[in-house]
Amino acid sequence: MSRFPFSAIVGQHEMKLALLIAAVDPSIGGVMVFGDRGTGKSTAARALAALLPPISVAEGCRYGCRPDQAGTCPDPCTSKRARKQAVPFVDMPLGATEDRVLGALDLERALRSGEKAFEPGLLAKAHRGFLYIDEINLLEDHLVDLLLDVAASRENVVEREGLSVRHRASFVLIGSGNPEEGELRPQLLDRFGLSVEVRTPTQIEDRVEIMRRCAAQERDAAGFANEWQAEENKVLRQIARGQTKLAKLEVPDDVLTDAANLCMAVGADGLRGELTLMRSARALAALRGAKSVRREHVTDVAPLALRHRLRRDVLDETGSTVRIERSISELFG
Amino acid sequence: MSRFPFSAIVGQHEMKLALLIAAVDPSIGGVMVFGDRGTGKSTAARALAALLPPISVAEGCRYGCRPDQAGTCPDPCTSKRARKQAVPFVDMPLGATEDRVLGALDLERALRSGEKAFEPGLLAKAHRGFLYIDEINLLEDHLVDLLLDVAASRENVVEREGLSVRHRASFVLIGSGNPEEGELRPQLLDRFGLSVEVRTPTQIEDRVEIMRRCAAQERDAAGFANEWQAEENKVLRQIARGQTKLAKLEVPDDVLTDAANLCMAVGADGLRGELTLMRSARALAALRGAKSVRREHVTDVAPLALRHRLRRDVLDETGSTVRIERSISELFG
Amino acid sequence: MSRFPFSAIVGQHEMKLALLIAAVDPSIGGVMVFGDRGTGKSTAARALAALLPPISVAEGCRYGCRPDQAGTCPDPCTSKRARKQAVPFVDMPLGATEDRVLGALDLERALRSGEKAFEPGLLAKAHRGFLYIDEINLLEDHLVDLLLDVAASRENVVEREGLSVRHRASFVLIGSGNPEEGELRPQLLDRFGLSVEVRTPTQIEDRVEIMRRCAAQERDAAGFANEWQAEENKVLRQIARGQTKLAKLEVPDDVLTDAANLCMAVGADGLRGELTLMRSARALAALRGAKSVRREHVTDVAPLALRHRLRRDVLDETGSTVRIERSISELFG
Amino acid sequence: MSRFPFSAIVGQHEMKLALLIAAVDPSIGGVMVFGDRGTGKSTAARALAALLPPISVAEGCRYGCRPDQAGTCPDPCTSKRARKQAVPFVDMPLGATEDRVLGALDLERALRSGEKAFEPGLLAKAHRGFLYIDEINLLEDHLVDLLLDVAASRENVVEREGLSVRHRASFVLIGSGNPEEGELRPQLLDRFGLSVEVRTPTQIEDRVEIMRRCAAQERDAAGFANEWQAEENKVLRQIARGQTKLAKLEVPDDVLTDAANLCMAVGADGLRGELTLMRSARALAALRGAKSVRREHVTDVAPLALRHRLRRDVLDETGSTVRIERSISELFG
Amino acid sequence: MSRFPFSAIVGQHEMKLALLIAAVDPSIGGVMVFGDRGTGKSTAARALAALLPPISVAEGCRYGCRPDQAGTCPDPCTSKRARKQAVPFVDMPLGATEDRVLGALDLERALRSGEKAFEPGLLAKAHRGFLYIDEINLLEDHLVDLLLDVAASRENVVEREGLSVRHRASFVLIGSGNPEEGELRPQLLDRFGLSVEVRTPTQIEDRVEIMRRCAAQERDAAGFANEWQAEENKVLRQIARGQTKLAKLEVPDDVLTDAANLCMAVGADGLRGELTLMRSARALAALRGAKSVRREHVTDVAPLALRHRLRRDVLDETGSTVRIERSISELFG
Amino acid sequence: MSRFPFSAIVGQHEMKLALLIAAVDPSIGGVMVFGDRGTGKSTAARALAALLPPISVAEGCRYGCRPDQAGTCPDPCTSKRARKQAVPFVDMPLGATEDRVLGALDLERALRSGEKAFEPGLLAKAHRGFLYIDEINLLEDHLVDLLLDVAASRENVVEREGLSVRHRASFVLIGSGNPEEGELRPQLLDRFGLSVEVRTPTQIEDRVEIMRRCAAQERDAAGFANEWQAEENKVLRQIARGQTKLAKLEVPDDVLTDAANLCMAVGADGLRGELTLMRSARALAALRGAKSVRREHVTDVAPLALRHRLRRDVLDETGSTVRIERSISELFG
Repeated sequence: MSRFPFSAIVGQHEMKLALLIAAVDPSIGGVMVFGDRGTGKSTAARALAALLPPISVAEGCRYGCRPDQAGTCPDPCTSKRARKQAVPFVDMPLGATEDRVLGALDLERALRSGEKAFEPGLLAKAHRGFLYIDEINLLEDHLVDLLLDVAASRENVVEREGLSVRHRASFVLIGSGNPEEGELRPQLLDRFGLSVEVRTPTQIEDRVEIMRRCAAQERDAAGFANEWQAEENKVLRQIARGQTKLAKLEVPDDVLTDAANLCMAVGADGLRGELTLMRSARALAALRGAKSVRREHVTDVAPLALRHRLRRDVLDETGSTVRIERSISELFG
Repeated sequence: MSRFPFSAIVGQHEMKLALLIAAVDPSIGGVMVFGDRGTGKSTAARALAALLPPISVAEGCRYGCRPDQAGTCPDPCTSKRARKQAVPFVDMPLGATEDRVLGALDLERALRSGEKAFEPGLLAKAHRGFLYIDEINLLEDHLVDLLLDVAASRENVVEREGLSVRHRASFVLIGSGNPEEGELRPQLLDRFGLSVEVRTPTQIEDRVEIMRRCAAQERDAAGFANEWQAEENKVLRQIARGQTKLAKLEVPDDVLTDAANLCMAVGADGLRGELTLMRSARALAALRGAKSVRREHVTDVAPLALRHRLRRDVLDETGSTVRIERSISELFG
Repeated sequence: MSRFPFSAIVGQHEMKLALLIAAVDPSIGGVMVFGDRGTGKSTAARALAALLPPISVAEGCRYGCRPDQAGTCPDPCTSKRARKQAVPFVDMPLGATEDRVLGALDLERALRSGEKAFEPGLLAKAHRGFLYIDEINLLEDHLVDLLLDVAASRENVVEREGLSVRHRASFVLIGSGNPEEGELRPQLLDRFGLSVEVRTPTQIEDRVEIMRRCAAQERDAAGFANEWQAEENKVLRQIARGQTKLAKLEVPDDVLTDAANLCMAVGADGLRGELTLMRSARALAALRGAKSVRREHVTDVAPLALRHRLRRDVLDETGSTVRIERSISELFG
Repeated sequence: MSRFPFSAIVGQHEMKLALLIAAVDPSIGGVMVFGDRGTGKSTAARALAALLPPISVAEGCRYGCRPDQAGTCPDPCTSKRARKQAVPFVDMPLGATEDRVLGALDLERALRSGEKAFEPGLLAKAHRGFLYIDEINLLEDHLVDLLLDVAASRENVVEREGLSVRHRASFVLIGSGNPEEGELRPQLLDRFGLSVEVRTPTQIEDRVEIMRRCAAQERDAAGFANEWQAEENKVLRQIARGQTKLAKLEVPDDVLTDAANLCMAVGADGLRGELTLMRSARALAALRGAKSVRREHVTDVAPLALRHRLRRDVLDETGSTVRIERSISELFG
Repeated sequence: MSRFPFSAIVGQHEMKLALLIAAVDPSIGGVMVFGDRGTGKSTAARALAALLPPISVAEGCRYGCRPDQAGTCPDPCTSKRARKQAVPFVDMPLGATEDRVLGALDLERALRSGEKAFEPGLLAKAHRGFLYIDEINLLEDHLVDLLLDVAASRENVVEREGLSVRHRASFVLIGSGNPEEGELRPQLLDRFGLSVEVRTPTQIEDRVEIMRRCAAQERDAAGFANEWQAEENKVLRQIARGQTKLAKLEVPDDVLTDAANLCMAVGADGLRGELTLMRSARALAALRGAKSVRREHVTDVAPLALRHRLRRDVLDETGSTVRIERSISELFG
Repeated sequence: MSRFPFSAIVGQHEMKLALLIAAVDPSIGGVMVFGDRGTGKSTAARALAALLPPISVAEGCRYGCRPDQAGTCPDPCTSKRARKQAVPFVDMPLGATEDRVLGALDLERALRSGEKAFEPGLLAKAHRGFLYIDEINLLEDHLVDLLLDVAASRENVVEREGLSVRHRASFVLIGSGNPEEGELRPQLLDRFGLSVEVRTPTQIEDRVEIMRRCAAQERDAAGFANEWQAEENKVLRQIARGQTKLAKLEVPDDVLTDAANLCMAVGADGLRGELTLMRSARALAALRGAKSVRREHVTDVAPLALRHRLRRDVLDETGSTVRIERSISELFG
């Protein structure tokens, strides 16, 4: 089934922004998406993966290695010949086992031929792409923890049953969940870099437009894709520029102080809040082609970087986003 | 046991309508049937499957492939010879395991001969037919989720235990449940295209008629089938016409706006409501042989498309159907 | 241990009536027996099985096939030679597994010789006889469901682990339970054709008579059986006559209307109530040698056919039997 | 460790009576023992087993067959040579599995040599002796049910995993439990023939005597046994006489009427109460060498036969024993 | 790590007394230790084991047999050669399985070579020594029950999976637990011979002395052991004398009456209380070199023998020890 | 990923002190870290491991043996050749099984070649380094217990499945947990030597400094490490001096009395409190190069040694640290 173009998505600005930041600097950590059912939470992520240019993979490699890295993964492939492949987008099945996620001993082969062969799992599949977990709150904690570990270290290490396997697993982790259905433990939420909120659009025009575009795509997917190609190319160029600029940008001390003050003011536990705020402000500046990181970059990404890290305040039932915006306006007026 | 003719079913108009719409445009998604025990919830579905003309299947294929697609499924059948077979109707057993549904490694063969043979499951059996799940609320969530995924993508992908199998699995999913016995999670309900309500008939004449027809069929099934053949043929022609017309129908903007307004008014979360409303109005128009999609098509299918997607309103305990009908009358008077 | 003669059972008229109806028309569905412990719930069922004339079975067949059907079951027996065998009476063990009930792959043989041999289960054993389930409310729902499915379709279909086995399994299902110990879900109860209530006799004479007959049978089982042989033969002739008459009886429209009115009046959900009422009235008429089905046949079996299908009425805590009898007297009184 | 002599047990008259009745007529069913911890509940049962003369067993038979029955059990032993063996006393381990109780396929042998060998279980061990289950209320219901089935039918039938094994298993089942620790379900209790209550002795002299006898036995077990041999022989002769007389005794109608009246008066559900009462009165008469069964035999065993079968009476919290004795005095005064 | 000398333990008089009694007469049954965490509950037990002279074991025997008993255990060792070995002290791991405790079939060897080899468990390891179970209340009941059975019978009998193994397992069972963390069931507690209470010392001098001795031992374990050797020898001689005297001591009737009166007065359920009291008074007399058993021996061990057997008295929340001491003073005052 | 330098950590004085004390005297037992998420609880531990000089390991040894101990572990390595290796830092995965932690039979190798090969686990990996357990309160109790046992005995003993393996496992155990998420049982907490509390810094300057250092390290890890090398060397020298001095320091009696008085005053159950207090005061004195252990060393480490051992006092809800400091000031004030 052909994907919906990224730029043809109506609304969902915050979701799209988070994805672009993660595309520019994947070290920011995963993206957690909160939102109602049926709001197309996975559409934007799939669309971004489909938009990115195909990657070049060593021929025959089950770990998605770059041709110049062939032979450095558990597969004994020495050929440097490359094949093109779409950017991976792995949709984690509900109820997936740890073995299936991490990879596991190929038991049948071990018993038959006495070889300890490793069967790569979903993490190997997701390498250099996206790992999407719908309803992440239904996943067992230790699996979420493990996924966040791998996402952070960009490496999957499996050591058990006499296996000792290690392979690259660099991907953007995207989790989604409806907060009314039970939340992730704060410990796990905190490990996501950014979070976004997605809602059903409330404008009739938007909703009609969505139906119109869906109908158009259903009727003639190729034509629809053609129509949006120019817009898609713009997005691609923006990401490429961001990646180039990122390494050259530093965050000046006064902006760091802004970030620290904001975190103190909103009551974000721990230090991940301001570290993520610093990194995502830098990525946003890069994405926008700014010459330096400025306060506006901090305040623009603050809801994404801090919303899921706020301490509960029983006396203040205001939503997280409102509390962050109020603190911004009080501090920086 | 010979099936009851579709057209000999007394009452059950909504159920029959939903089935006809799904037969015309299976992309609408599954049908969820709410209703008391013993109201013949599965009778109409079985009857429709039995009514449809036999399908042509590649000889020896365990995946039900069309003869012209032989060799494109995991079975290595190259023969293009065809055999005729009734449209599949699979009744999911309570307590079926994931392996049995998806198919699984044929372990015995793997151990004996070292071959990784795939044993197709119920999804392969249901291809090109119907998958009926009684008391779907008793099924584990992850299995329902998986069934809805396959129903939507029309493809079953099994990747584990070193297997990597992919085969077509295009079927109409029909779930039934008694809402007094515990509901599906809203997330899962929302993924069903349509929903219908079935009740015990309240007219003595209807109930006597039902007993009379049952007794007649029990006494002489062949004669009874003969008696209803003409009616059955009418239904077949209506479905065929609908399938032909569907591709040519577009939904005009004012009808889209009607759909969006109605969804906003009844408070349907997410976007699946209006997308399904658009598609099923189009299918209904095709079924009726209409030249264009009109507001009446939208309002006629609205209860089926929206009933299971309404937000709970603690101040308004009116039933979903009543709320939809009231909104229709307020909006379109 | 020799069985107690059916006709020597003191009291238990309703239980015996239900068994005779089921013997005349097994399509009525199973019989659910409610009652206290130690009231000899299984005695009547065992006695009826022991009373029936031995059946003729293909020699060497593990599925109890009739000699003229030899070779049509999974066993490859072509011999048409017959052996005589008592009518099967299978007492389902508490805690029986699905494999044991349905039959399963003979794993040891599969591993040793590579053959996929099917090991028939209790359902094969019960073919052409009775399957008795004490304390059915302690059985898992999905097993009860499965048993009711097989009882209704008269066929056991096992498709898994690469097996595809199908064999006849035609039996009268009898479940017993004490309603104070937890009930079956209404969905499952509704699928039983008839239900009866068994109580400890309250007349001293009856109780002394029971002890006397038990002591007599314990002392000299053969002599006791001899003493009751004439009575047993009467019962046998009555069943045989009923089976012959059944096919010729129709239920006139006014009796159907009586049945529908009665079901509406007592508030029986769904349609199984009146369908069972119609069928069991017809069987009763056959058993009694009546020329046509009359209202009295409907009212005589109504408690058996409807008692377990009544909607709960919080304002009317009257027992089910009383409510049915009151409705009969109000309607037809 | 040498056993304590049956006749050296201080007190415990009811327990000893029940054991003697069961020794005379094992068809009475098991004995349920209620009582505090540490009251020597198992001592009397072990002592009776040790007292009985050794049994003669076919040489090499794992099922404890009588030499004249050699070859009729699953073991292929044709030798009629006998060996002597103590009467079995099997103490069921807490947490014993169904396989261990019933016997099971010897899996290792099956895999190695392809033979389906049956490994006999505790039921085979208990054949012709006693099966003692401490804290029977901690056993799973289905296991208790199964044990009671085997005890009643005197035969163990194992049919599964392709095995079809049947062997004699005739034993006196003795269960013990502290009612303060949770009770057996009434359904299961009712299936025990007799029940007794055991309490800590309340006389100082009894308690000193117990210590004295224990100390004497610990110091010199052989001498202690010698000292009690004459008493032990008396008990043996009493049992032998009872077994001989039993077959000749009938229960007259007026005594049956007494039994039925008593059961009605105390409110014993079901019919097992009076059947057991009849049988145990007969066994008691035989044990006492009486010429006929009389009312006194009924009233003497009534507490043992009925105590565990009384319906709960919320308005009468009097203990079961008191209620039975009150009814006896009101009826027969 | 070298053990702490038994005689260097500061305080803990009751614990040390119970261990010495058990060393003199192991038939008294296990010792249950109640007490707070970190009070060195296991220190005294380990110290006593380390203090006892090494035992002589048949060379190569996995069951710790005495050289003169070689060949009487499941190991086929015929050599009578002996090796010296420290008295076993087995510390039961939390979460140990039944297989590990009892021993089990060596599955790997059975599959490879077809031999049914028994792999001895912790019970074999503990033979002729001590089995210590920390936090015994966390162990499953059936395991505690089984350990108490083996401790009482001094024999481990494993009969399952076609194994029939029997070996000596004579050890002192020591359980510890904090009563605030959940208690053993009274049934299990009652089966322990003695119980002791251990508390944190409340004297500063004691606590400083403990630190001083610990520091001294940590600095120079060998020197510290040397320093205490004379004291250790004294304890050894005391135990040896007790073992010799025990067989010659009888308990006079008036002392038995004292024991019975005391048990009645404190309300100890069952008979194990006075039997243990009798035995431990005898052992104490032996340990002290007394010529006869006297009332003082009974009263001195009464708290150890009865404390864990008292019936709960809702009107008297006084601790068990106080109730026993009060009864002693009232009776014998 | 390169580690953060130990000395570049901003704040966290207590955590760093506990680690240095454990480095000087590992017999003090593990360190329990309480604190909010995202406060870098594991950063200091990882940094200390990375700071320590590489260890010398026997070539090919899977147990990390010192070259002069080669051949004393289960690996049959006789080569004394050494290789250098970083100090191990093992991060225990959530959900790790007992087999993975302890090591286990290499089943595949056992089945294939009949050899019982032991596959070392995480404990072998952690030998001579650190074992870090995040969210230790989520681990099963028996695993925590086992880890504490191994940490205390410095030896891992695995005896089951016919294996009998014993290898050195000397490591500093560090557990972390958020007390708001459920606590360890007091029994387990008490077995940790020290505990520390880590909080998010509350000074803006500290938080800005942290971001600045993180950014610097992310930009140029090598340069950042260089910058801090001098500070790192200072820490290394301090640890080395402490290790040398430790053996020569004794704790005078008056300081022991101070420790005992303090433990009594704060209400620390058991004796582990003062023993740890004594040992850690001595280690602190060594670390500071003091000539003798003085009261100030006791009071400085008291919060670390006692905080997690305080009895709950329902009348005094003051935090543990405050209670300890108050007692110090009252006693020694």
